[in-house]
Amino acid sequence: MIAIDWGTSSFRAYRLTPEGAIADKRSAQLGILAVQDGKFAEALENQVGDWLDAGETRVVMSGMIGSRQGWKEAPYARCPAGVEEIAAGMIEVRWRSSRTAWIAPGLSCRDPQGVPDVMRGEETQILGALDHILESPAWICLPGTHSKWVRLERGKIIHFATHMTGEVFAVMKAHSILGRTMADAQPDPVAFQSGVLRGRSSGGLLHHLFGVRARVVSNDLTEEDSAAYLSGLLIGHELATIPRLTGVVYLLGTPQLEHLYSEALKCYGVDTLSLDPDSAAAGLSKLAQALPRS
Amino acid sequence: MIAIDWGTSSFRAYRLTPEGAIADKRSAQLGILAVQDGKFAEALENQVGDWLDAGETRVVMSGMIGSRQGWKEAPYARCPAGVEEIAAGMIEVRWRSSRTAWIAPGLSCRDPQGVPDVMRGEETQILGALDHILESPAWICLPGTHSKWVRLERGKIIHFATHMTGEVFAVMKAHSILGRTMADAQPDPVAFQSGVLRGRSSGGLLHHLFGVRARVVSNDLTEEDSAAYLSGLLIGHELATIPRLTGVVYLLGTPQLEHLYSEALKCYGVDTLSLDPDSAAAGLSKLAQALPRS
Repeated sequence: MIAIDWGTSSFRAYRLTPEGAIADKRSAQLGILAVQDGKFAEALENQVGDWLDAGETRVVMSGMIGSRQGWKEAPYARCPAGVEEIAAGMIEVRWRSSRTAWIAPGLSCRDPQGVPDVMRGEETQILGALDHILESPAWICLPGTHSKWVRLERGKIIHFATHMTGEVFAVMKAHSILGRTMADAQPDPVAFQSGVLRGRSSGGLLHHLFGVRARVVSNDLTEEDSAAYLSGLLIGHELATIPRLTGVVYLLGTPQLEHLYSEALKCYGVDTLSLDPDSAAAGLSKLAQALPRS
Repeated sequence: MIAIDWGTSSFRAYRLTPEGAIADKRSAQLGILAVQDGKFAEALENQVGDWLDAGETRVVMSGMIGSRQGWKEAPYARCPAGVEEIAAGMIEVRWRSSRTAWIAPGLSCRDPQGVPDVMRGEETQILGALDHILESPAWICLPGTHSKWVRLERGKIIHFATHMTGEVFAVMKAHSILGRTMADAQPDPVAFQSGVLRGRSSGGLLHHLFGVRARVVSNDLTEEDSAAYLSGLLIGHELATIPRLTGVVYLLGTPQLEHLYSEALKCYGVDTLSLDPDSAAAGLSKLAQALPRS
């Protein structure tokens, strides 16, 4: 089978053996935003046409390819959801006379105030990592532009919350007054940690953000340290909202981000374990097994 | 005397009678960032040279003109501070053979975690408004790009906190993914209020920010309402951090911002009173009276 993690900005394809092992993999800067005029079938053929020609008939995809801006919208499944509930929401696309692929739905939940949250793609990564998560309940954190905290219980995602941490960092650094006094430097772990601790204290994020500037103006923080402090501050604010933060948190992200979150979680006395970032392939393999055989 | 409120982006000059009444006023888009090569004396002469030639000898200034990027740095006075303490921190600048002006210091304080906060210019506006503030203690809010909450007790500023509310709104709207699904529209008061209420609830600002997107994606919020919701959300988060928020809050800002903050404070059952935005002139007049006569 072919498993494809097709997001906003990247395309990752895996050719899997019947046992679910990765036989081959490819990736391209061919996110759904880079596909013109809805030509997703052509894009797919360009990337893995040779695998299809070689006889692969089962294609399973997840990520933004199932969004309104993607190939075909796959409505969100709802929490609580495990392999079975997510597989039940998969939709089929067809091209040429006989080729077909399945698209996994995203996942949605509502918080106690009734405000919705959504993910597309991360749910599949989590399904793929399930076998490595020993605790129940457990926290999985997927740090990133929009970092996700996912609560897992007996193999199902029961709730999750997304934080704009990475994007707020990037936007404030590039476009706000804070960026004007940030000198490029090797991130300082002490400055980062003092940001994390600040994030746990009272005053609110909007006030703490101004504090980055006030500290620099007051010679309380160097321009070299202010990006690391801002990064710690934002991650600290994210962590401060997570309930029942004890024991172990599973991290699923790039090594750089996993390192930052791991350092930040140490301030809470929480250990971290790293999950395989290629777990989307395993998740898609599980979803494929739950589909009716064609 | 001549009172000058000289900020980052604007220059406002007032000619005052000996009794402190405004006899004439002028303003220009001549903030300190627009003055080249430190030619502040020339810029001042260009704006109010005729008043000086007519015999005005006392010139008192406040705002960013006293910052490191301004004419001459006037080190911050420290809270608690009233007219006397701020006047004691004024510094003199001289040009030509005999012309002089005084620059008011900014004001600084430290919060319980020892993190500094700073203002330059607002302290003078507040001194000018003192006579209209009947309660003690009292809250004064100066909404804006960097909104300030100032605690006043018996004529002195005892503490304040700055929030990056206005700038975060502008930056997120212009540069983040949230702005991509914001349609221009007349701000909707119901959407604004629901943002304010969300700001009082748990989950944290970084999560609530993603909620703006999740609500739009889930057809829970229209693109037309999402800017008003974001604005309410940020102001709501600011208000949620203010301790002892009861009774009356004094507002000192533009009519548009005063309206928004007044609506947001209604969600807390708090009334607002509007202060004169030209109060910097009265504040500078008070500071001038506290100076030694030359």
